[in-house]
Amino acid sequence: MSRSELVSKLRSFLPRDAVLYETEDLKPYECDGLSAYRQTPMIVALPQTEEEVAKILQICHATQIPVVARGAGTGLSGGALPHNEGILLSLAKLKRILEIDPIARTARVQPGVRNLAISEAVAPYSLYYAPDPSSQIACTIGGNVAENSGGVHCLKYGLTVHNILKLRVLTMEGQAIEIGSSALDSPGYDLLALMTGSEGMLGIITEITVKLTPKPEKAQLVMAAFNDIQKAADAVANIISAGIIPAGMEMMDKITIHAVEDFLHAGYDLDAAAILLCEADGMTEEVADEIQKISTIMQESGAIKISISRNETERLCFWAGRKAAFPAAGRVSPDYYCMDGTIPRKRLAQVLHDIETLSAEYGLRCMNVFHAGDGNLHPLILYDANQPGELEKTEAFGARILEICIEAGGTITGEHGVGIEKLDQMCLQFKSAERNLFHAIKHAFDPAGLLNPGKAIPSLHRCAELGAMHVHRSENKFPTIPRF
Amino acid sequence: MSRSELVSKLRSFLPRDAVLYETEDLKPYECDGLSAYRQTPMIVALPQTEEEVAKILQICHATQIPVVARGAGTGLSGGALPHNEGILLSLAKLKRILEIDPIARTARVQPGVRNLAISEAVAPYSLYYAPDPSSQIACTIGGNVAENSGGVHCLKYGLTVHNILKLRVLTMEGQAIEIGSSALDSPGYDLLALMTGSEGMLGIITEITVKLTPKPEKAQLVMAAFNDIQKAADAVANIISAGIIPAGMEMMDKITIHAVEDFLHAGYDLDAAAILLCEADGMTEEVADEIQKISTIMQESGAIKISISRNETERLCFWAGRKAAFPAAGRVSPDYYCMDGTIPRKRLAQVLHDIETLSAEYGLRCMNVFHAGDGNLHPLILYDANQPGELEKTEAFGARILEICIEAGGTITGEHGVGIEKLDQMCLQFKSAERNLFHAIKHAFDPAGLLNPGKAIPSLHRCAELGAMHVHRSENKFPTIPRF
Repeated sequence: MSRSELVSKLRSFLPRDAVLYETEDLKPYECDGLSAYRQTPMIVALPQTEEEVAKILQICHATQIPVVARGAGTGLSGGALPHNEGILLSLAKLKRILEIDPIARTARVQPGVRNLAISEAVAPYSLYYAPDPSSQIACTIGGNVAENSGGVHCLKYGLTVHNILKLRVLTMEGQAIEIGSSALDSPGYDLLALMTGSEGMLGIITEITVKLTPKPEKAQLVMAAFNDIQKAADAVANIISAGIIPAGMEMMDKITIHAVEDFLHAGYDLDAAAILLCEADGMTEEVADEIQKISTIMQESGAIKISISRNETERLCFWAGRKAAFPAAGRVSPDYYCMDGTIPRKRLAQVLHDIETLSAEYGLRCMNVFHAGDGNLHPLILYDANQPGELEKTEAFGARILEICIEAGGTITGEHGVGIEKLDQMCLQFKSAERNLFHAIKHAFDPAGLLNPGKAIPSLHRCAELGAMHVHRSENKFPTIPRF
Repeated sequence: MSRSELVSKLRSFLPRDAVLYETEDLKPYECDGLSAYRQTPMIVALPQTEEEVAKILQICHATQIPVVARGAGTGLSGGALPHNEGILLSLAKLKRILEIDPIARTARVQPGVRNLAISEAVAPYSLYYAPDPSSQIACTIGGNVAENSGGVHCLKYGLTVHNILKLRVLTMEGQAIEIGSSALDSPGYDLLALMTGSEGMLGIITEITVKLTPKPEKAQLVMAAFNDIQKAADAVANIISAGIIPAGMEMMDKITIHAVEDFLHAGYDLDAAAILLCEADGMTEEVADEIQKISTIMQESGAIKISISRNETERLCFWAGRKAAFPAAGRVSPDYYCMDGTIPRKRLAQVLHDIETLSAEYGLRCMNVFHAGDGNLHPLILYDANQPGELEKTEAFGARILEICIEAGGTITGEHGVGIEKLDQMCLQFKSAERNLFHAIKHAFDPAGLLNPGKAIPSLHRCAELGAMHVHRSENKFPTIPRF
């Protein structure tokens, strides 16, 4: 089917402004938060109801046209990168909150509802939606489910998969299925978890029932400065092994501290090699007790300075620096590339040291700011895209960081997904037996491969080629990379 | 391949006593905890290593022989019921604890390790494994994963799926795959969740990495008696909506109270229509505060008597009655049939009333004892298998209870699984679109259908037949059953 035929077919049930195909209209959709990858879609469709989504899918299924779903486009791994011969299916207009049940503590919402809008809507009941990605003001809950998003508080409150109960999903054929249940468990295979984090490759989500969490009575923050990153890493391990599960535990290295302090004046210690922020929340007595224990452990682990937030303003001020790390990077460098890998907590100091070595090797600065409690690193590689060759060097540096994460027993993504960015690393992360199963599952849902083709799960061919290349590279340069 | 050929093939790498085929040797394996269903397997194999398991699978795959995995055989839905032409694969001898990491708070164990043995092994580090099914002294962790088991404390600490990190699994071809990760999330589709609760139909688990939980500083219990079951149900809702997540919240009805008090003399109020047990655990101050809040809510909800455990002995004594509910049922009736359904908490009182009505209709007594906090009912239907027709009546009554759970917006199993017992109810719980996806997933893992055939996921044919039957039944007798 030609583009114009498809446009008129879509316009038979969608308003004119809900079917875009002119180059200038398509431009805003050519990338998501990973701007290094760009692609213009054939058509952008902006349905407003589930029925419209179903019709679009039925047409695409009948005519074998690829479909890429998109929420707010804040994803950082290129999961919503369009397909040049496909429809970019924006779910942004499906943004109604359908039901709030304060007794069961659930809300049923459409996929285009913003993460923060849920918390705002349920605030009158002293409830909130716990997962809080940095982009929560803009990102949509549908995208959160597709990427299984986390956030600063996921150490204590879990990822998206731990905070949703039910999904309504359209298959590629446009047929509605309902998965999950109001109970803790649902019979049959766990389709709810399978769909969560599947990056738009198994179905199109049209409704999400989320769990809501009671707002804690109190939250308080300990900020500790260390003159040695190893000591800060030890403090993280010691807090966890004391049986404390902080509401958040974030670390920043020296270069980050300087960049954000310069920008925001949050009161960070400029002599520190690392700063740890550790938050406790809950009932007032419980928080007081936990803050006391955390401070003692920080001290015993060798902190050179400890500050405890005395009020809500101070708590937010301590957080402000951490939350501004990305814009601060933008101030000290023309461009930056945000990585996302996880490692076992005990390997923190060593992996940070390895990243420092690579930073010297590639001649590129790297800020380290991360969810220390769950070992989720976000190295920000600073570069200048206008310098010839620097983007390529940055990508090679980033790939090496992910390989180090795998070698340390970790994974190539904590919360940003695989998307288009980490397809090669998936070949390292998984053996062919596991990759074959991924393909078999994809085939079970979408045999024609029309949903978000080319994302998240690398083709067998790609991994075979990369394997050959890797053997070559590892013989010459990277002797520690496992061979596949 | 004949039985004797298979026996000699298996004995080429397994010791003689690890391959059973004489009738008297097969007898102990003919059922699991659901003794109403019995079947003798062709052969029982008892491997001791993963390599042996892989070889058995390779042989069965090559010769198209069904394989049914079994742990301790404590399952309550017949998930481990043997196949008459298949191998019953006991994993009981794979019972080594391979690794304990008290810093990362994980343990890597083989599937035959008993649930309680994990907690015993990690007790020196003040850690334990949180999910605690009633059978925890006997049931194996492999079986727990297969059924996604819960327990009294899963309201606060989650089900099995929330307490495991990694699995090593053999496919039906005997190939090892590793799924999950040490991080909070793993890239690719969530195979870990998919495998959990899949009742041995997707692969054979050979290693499990579990999360360990720090032992709480203190635990304390509130026991409240109510003269009206509606008021007890209100108390449950009020506690949850106050933002409290109790460590456990259990309810018993009058007939249960009498049966257990008669048996154990735990101090339960014999005038009560319902007793609620509600536990708080955590740091001492936190527990004191929570117990205070819980007691106040119980009072405001109309409790006629409230007792708070004054010490550990008293706490265990209050629990003893609840934990002895099943043996107590055995004392007041020759046989009992334990059901397992979930409902939204707000429908508790109404569903209990409906069960009472059915009890009169069928002329069978029913004890109600359940995890009130998560709406997981365990009605125990009391009957006498020696009375002709009474088992059939009991099964019909049980099926009606599950249908009521579905009608109330709940599910047909909270933690016992579908197994062989609830295949018909799966046809009611899910529409054909969802059931088709279940079959497609099964096909992705085990295209020949050799792993635990005939369990958990009903055939399309079965549901079609049942659908016809149900329309008929609903026209005559059960007008509220939804038609499929």
